[in-house]
Amino acid sequence: MTETNDTGRILLALTGMPTDMWLDEFARAAPDRKVVVEPDGAADPSIRYAVVWKQRPALLSKLPSLKAIFSLGAGVDHVFRDPDLPDVPIVRVVSPDLTTRMSEYVAWQVLDHHRLGPRYRAQQARKVWNEDRGQKAARDITVGIMGLGELGRDAAAKLQALGFRVSGWSRTEKQVEGVACHAGPEGLGPFLASADIFVVLLPLTPDTSGILDRSLFERMTRRGPLGAPVLINAGRGGLQNEADILAALDEGLLSAVTLDVFQQEPLAPDSPFWSHPAVTVTPHAAAASVPSSLIGPMVAQMDAHDRGEPLVNLVNRAAGY
Amino acid sequence: MTETNDTGRILLALTGMPTDMWLDEFARAAPDRKVVVEPDGAADPSIRYAVVWKQRPALLSKLPSLKAIFSLGAGVDHVFRDPDLPDVPIVRVVSPDLTTRMSEYVAWQVLDHHRLGPRYRAQQARKVWNEDRGQKAARDITVGIMGLGELGRDAAAKLQALGFRVSGWSRTEKQVEGVACHAGPEGLGPFLASADIFVVLLPLTPDTSGILDRSLFERMTRRGPLGAPVLINAGRGGLQNEADILAALDEGLLSAVTLDVFQQEPLAPDSPFWSHPAVTVTPHAAAASVPSSLIGPMVAQMDAHDRGEPLVNLVNRAAGY
Ligand SMILES: NC(=O)c1ccc[n+]([C@@H]2O[C@H](COP(=O)([O-])OP(=O)(O)OC[C@H]3O[C@@H](n4cnc5c(N)ncnc54)[C@H](OP(=O)(O)O)[C@@H]3O)[C@@H](O)[C@H]2O)c1
Ligand SMILES: NC(=O)c1ccc[n+]([C@@H]2O[C@H](COP(=O)([O-])OP(=O)(O)OC[C@H]3O[C@@H](n4cnc5c(N)ncnc54)[C@H](OP(=O)(O)O)[C@@H]3O)[C@@H](O)[C@H]2O)c1
Repeated sequence: MTETNDTGRILLALTGMPTDMWLDEFARAAPDRKVVVEPDGAADPSIRYAVVWKQRPALLSKLPSLKAIFSLGAGVDHVFRDPDLPDVPIVRVVSPDLTTRMSEYVAWQVLDHHRLGPRYRAQQARKVWNEDRGQKAARDITVGIMGLGELGRDAAAKLQALGFRVSGWSRTEKQVEGVACHAGPEGLGPFLASADIFVVLLPLTPDTSGILDRSLFERMTRRGPLGAPVLINAGRGGLQNEADILAALDEGLLSAVTLDVFQQEPLAPDSPFWSHPAVTVTPHAAAASVPSSLIGPMVAQMDAHDRGEPLVNLVNRAAGY
Repeated sequence: MTETNDTGRILLALTGMPTDMWLDEFARAAPDRKVVVEPDGAADPSIRYAVVWKQRPALLSKLPSLKAIFSLGAGVDHVFRDPDLPDVPIVRVVSPDLTTRMSEYVAWQVLDHHRLGPRYRAQQARKVWNEDRGQKAARDITVGIMGLGELGRDAAAKLQALGFRVSGWSRTEKQVEGVACHAGPEGLGPFLASADIFVVLLPLTPDTSGILDRSLFERMTRRGPLGAPVLINAGRGGLQNEADILAALDEGLLSAVTLDVFQQEPLAPDSPFWSHPAVTVTPHAAAASVPSSLIGPMVAQMDAHDRGEPLVNLVNRAAGY
């Protein structure tokens, strides 16, 4: 046992997520650093870094020496729910492991809709052998990606490798190899008219909250090879108006949806999503934050910061992500 | 209407497949060539080319001027079922459209098993929210591809792009970028020990008939991250011993299978595959032969051959594929 390193005590402040797996990984990756789990460490002046997932409000503002907040996810909406959030840098997760997992999920669900997974499973259940001779090829289908950030750009590349055409939408203008890019509110209309399957990889911010609503679905084209579009939301539940999604499915504005995220998680047992035939539910499992791939780089950032080097993957507080 | 071109009358000899869609495409791609549909054209000396899918036996041997046989599929086992097959070159389908469709299917089914599709769908049916926190990343999984031909090599590249490790097995030694390659009967043991998910893209030949049997499953490793391996057969039904597959699932030699092809197609209504919880059935839909993408190149080959140029994508009669 070495003596605790004074320069970098860490507070772990998580709700709704197990703590042990993170502690174990800190013990491996940073045996010299003392990690305290809240409610221990309240107002402790020796804490320099907070590692958080949905931290309890007003906890971080009482830490007098806090230098930076590390989010345990790529999204930071959970951090901003704290009205007393101190004005220190916020670092979010950008990790090849997380990105690759998300692209697996996106490719999986895009292919499941494109290759008629729900139809063939329903046929299997009825013991019906019936090939769809009109099966489109990937190159006939455009996947529209909402959010061309770390996750959206990687998904775009992998969908293109599978043969799909890809369009995308972001807040600021982007250039992405092979992707028809649109930006901002003016770009939204052309973007929504451009695609057959929509994949949502947006952060939850004041600007994007509830963006997946009837008015947006109405602007999507229904003249593509699939007829009504497919929606896949792997961003955040707060992006979606759930009543509007159900109505859009029932009215034919959307043909099918895959939802990994929900307004309320876990999804309530009485949610109509569970049993709707055009809905695929996954339990916020698109891209898990895995301790062994996240904590090493996080500790390396803390060490670098202690040496006076700048933090990376910083959140833009004005933009909210 | 131009006068029929004497040099290239075509016989279309299909069973178990609709004829009209092919005739329509020949009318578009080769308006000058006369296409006759069997039983018309029997023993017709003006027929130079036969385009076949499971042609009736002893039909082709009676065509005195036949120069080449064109298979409407990538596989040619259906051609060889004719005991009186004349000794002319056999051309098979090699098409970017077909290849890309097969790789879509392979990626889809590999991801469906890797990303726990069956488990999450069963949970959804029971309204259960339960993320698997042990979800492996693609890089933890090796996909073993049986058959490193046109289809297997493309699938290997796309699986690698998604992050999977890939190994492969072929008859003759192969070198494929990033793929751990094994060959021949000696290479089969190491290959079977190397992978977690097996994708079968072999042709059906005397050597491969029934290869997917208990003795092969027993040689697969069960020490990988998935425990017992997953089998995906998109080659031919004749490759598989169906009783052995069912027993292997029930005994835990295999954890799950996806079958696109069967000994008897359509799959009989009383087949246990339909309702087995660890079996995904698709109706020979992995990679359809699509007229608009196949007939143009086929006619171009006939034209080139008429000019004295060599045929390509020829079948090796000795090897049987
Ligand atoms: N389901 C899961 O398991 C899971 C796992 C990880 C992450 N996520 C979610 O995925 C989100 C994206 O992650 P990321 O790492 O790709 O984030 P990122 O790199 O910050 O990218 C966000 C993208 O969204 C765009 N965007 C933000 N606000 C917008 C607006 N008002 N209008 C149009 N576009 C807007 C950004 O535009 P600019 O390019 O112009 O900035 C950027 O392209 C996370 O915030 C998180 O909520 C979910
Ligand atoms: N389900 C569907 O919808 C669908 C659609 C299209 C095709 N298919 C099937 O897919 C098969 C493969 O197509 P392809 O175009 O990739 O064929 P291909 O280019 O001829 O490749 C066949 C591969 O199998 C290997 N192979 C053949 N006999 C073998 C043996 N005895 N031991 C080990 N390896 C052996 C070959 O080895 P070498 O490289 O050493 O020659 C080659 O790598 C077709 O024959 C067809 O049955 C199915």
